[in-house]
Amino acid sequence: MCAYKQSCTNLMDLPTAKVTEWLEGFDTVITDCDGVLWVYGRAIDGAVSVINLFKSMRKNIYFCTNNSTKTREELLKKAQNMGFSITEGEIISTAHATAAYLKKRNFEKRVYVIGSDGITKELDAVGIGHTGCGPDPMKGTMAETTKIQLETDIGAVVVGFDEHFSFPKMVKASSYLNDPNCLFIATNTDERFPMDNMVVPGSGCFVRAIETCAERTAKVIGKPNPAICEVLLQKEIGRIDPARTLMIGDRANTDILLGFNCGFQTLLVGTGVHQLSDVERWKKSKDLEDKKLIPDMYLPKLGDLLPALPLPKH
Amino acid sequence: MCAYKQSCTNLMDLPTAKVTEWLEGFDTVITDCDGVLWVYGRAIDGAVSVINLFKSMRKNIYFCTNNSTKTREELLKKAQNMGFSITEGEIISTAHATAAYLKKRNFEKRVYVIGSDGITKELDAVGIGHTGCGPDPMKGTMAETTKIQLETDIGAVVVGFDEHFSFPKMVKASSYLNDPNCLFIATNTDERFPMDNMVVPGSGCFVRAIETCAERTAKVIGKPNPAICEVLLQKEIGRIDPARTLMIGDRANTDILLGFNCGFQTLLVGTGVHQLSDVERWKKSKDLEDKKLIPDMYLPKLGDLLPALPLPKH
Repeated sequence: MCAYKQSCTNLMDLPTAKVTEWLEGFDTVITDCDGVLWVYGRAIDGAVSVINLFKSMRKNIYFCTNNSTKTREELLKKAQNMGFSITEGEIISTAHATAAYLKKRNFEKRVYVIGSDGITKELDAVGIGHTGCGPDPMKGTMAETTKIQLETDIGAVVVGFDEHFSFPKMVKASSYLNDPNCLFIATNTDERFPMDNMVVPGSGCFVRAIETCAERTAKVIGKPNPAICEVLLQKEIGRIDPARTLMIGDRANTDILLGFNCGFQTLLVGTGVHQLSDVERWKKSKDLEDKKLIPDMYLPKLGDLLPALPLPKH
Repeated sequence: MCAYKQSCTNLMDLPTAKVTEWLEGFDTVITDCDGVLWVYGRAIDGAVSVINLFKSMRKNIYFCTNNSTKTREELLKKAQNMGFSITEGEIISTAHATAAYLKKRNFEKRVYVIGSDGITKELDAVGIGHTGCGPDPMKGTMAETTKIQLETDIGAVVVGFDEHFSFPKMVKASSYLNDPNCLFIATNTDERFPMDNMVVPGSGCFVRAIETCAERTAKVIGKPNPAICEVLLQKEIGRIDPARTLMIGDRANTDILLGFNCGFQTLLVGTGVHQLSDVERWKKSKDLEDKKLIPDMYLPKLGDLLPALPLPKH
């Protein structure tokens, strides 16, 4: 864990030579995707060039997303279609990390899933049984509820983003969780995704609902929890030096806080949720939890690094 | 607000004469319904006789429930069918109290409702417009979500118990709440209702979900919030003396805490959620919040008061 930070450097205020010097201070980059590399399926200006230049500089690159609705394979396809030079092994997703977490613990029962097929496909890939996803066939009435038949081989409840969240799912999840031996795992707890005129709820909403009726606290896999790096840090042991790792993100309470929790360097970009004005607020705050959100560095967008990067080889 | 309590008297340990003396110490009784007077639609043994004897002793009786799915009229019918001598004016419900709360503040816009027709009927009764209840016609897919048309005259979001809770409802509620002028009201925050083999989520689950995506905290009307007594305390001003009022309940974090918050005397009965063993735990706890849950008195069931009550007149 890092020391609390009091200041954040806007890289735009540094001469290019200083930025180049800073770039030499890390050899691994873990970057968030939505809001850093792309928004609504479109690459953010300059992001592809920066990532591919990092690769040509032989930096280790990992894409790390709390989005539990896609498998690594699907995320890879999306990234490659935009032009990012990346492989499946360089993608860290909560759906995959959740499956890996259970697999590592030799989980042998089945999983009750509140989530999407991003989760169920990753469970399939490691041979863990589950109840599937999609709308619950039951109607949400109390009369139907009392007829719910609980299955007897459920050993974990996993909660992620679920467009088909419903009352019967809440009854089932909290009833399974009444057994203290049943594991309770949340892919992530992102609160929401602001869009133009509306608010899209994040997984955190579903997790809080289930935590309330289960009267239990979920083990959270996603950022800012270091569990999301568990696979990475283990597999690559000796290769990754936290002090020489840079975490890039647009949301401080997931990305930057993960960096804080793992002792990484941190860079906030202004193309997503949090802005420099938020950083100013945390600097003035007396709450030590807010101090953890202050990044080392700030940039309006990732592409602003381009002037300090070596020209691509032709 | 009362002083913190350290002890709780089991009325079963007192001689009948002492219990009769204690009965003279209050002239208003506010009692919870589910778990005190009835369970699953059946009156609990002795509860009808105790309440009706209280009435014959000229004590003021109020039934006070966090159940937002029924109107006062429906609750009245249910109670009268079991034999309770009670009138509509003696029923305090969160659905009614929510409508009264808005009416008192001259609310003139419409309400977006996550809840049941208990709420919409009470809003109708005071002439406040709303969006209705029941299943949202939209499918819960992200593609559909982006097509959601928000209405322009919504001035409040009310969240209660909703069997038809869904993703589109979460999107709408949190989008309306993006306007800081939109009121955010929760009927109550009960976590859950344990049943034989399953857990039924309470309103609190829906409230926590919406609070998470709205990034706002709801104004809670129901117990333990004194707002539920607002109408009562105002209308009956000068008639009710908190120190001579007894709050009876089975759930400490709603009923007994309401008593603490209003300066009422409190009686916990063991026919519902909390037991004497819970009281022992709170007595040992060092958390001052737990101390607020300790009732003045305890009884296994309300009917255990019968030996200390005057015989009914024939």
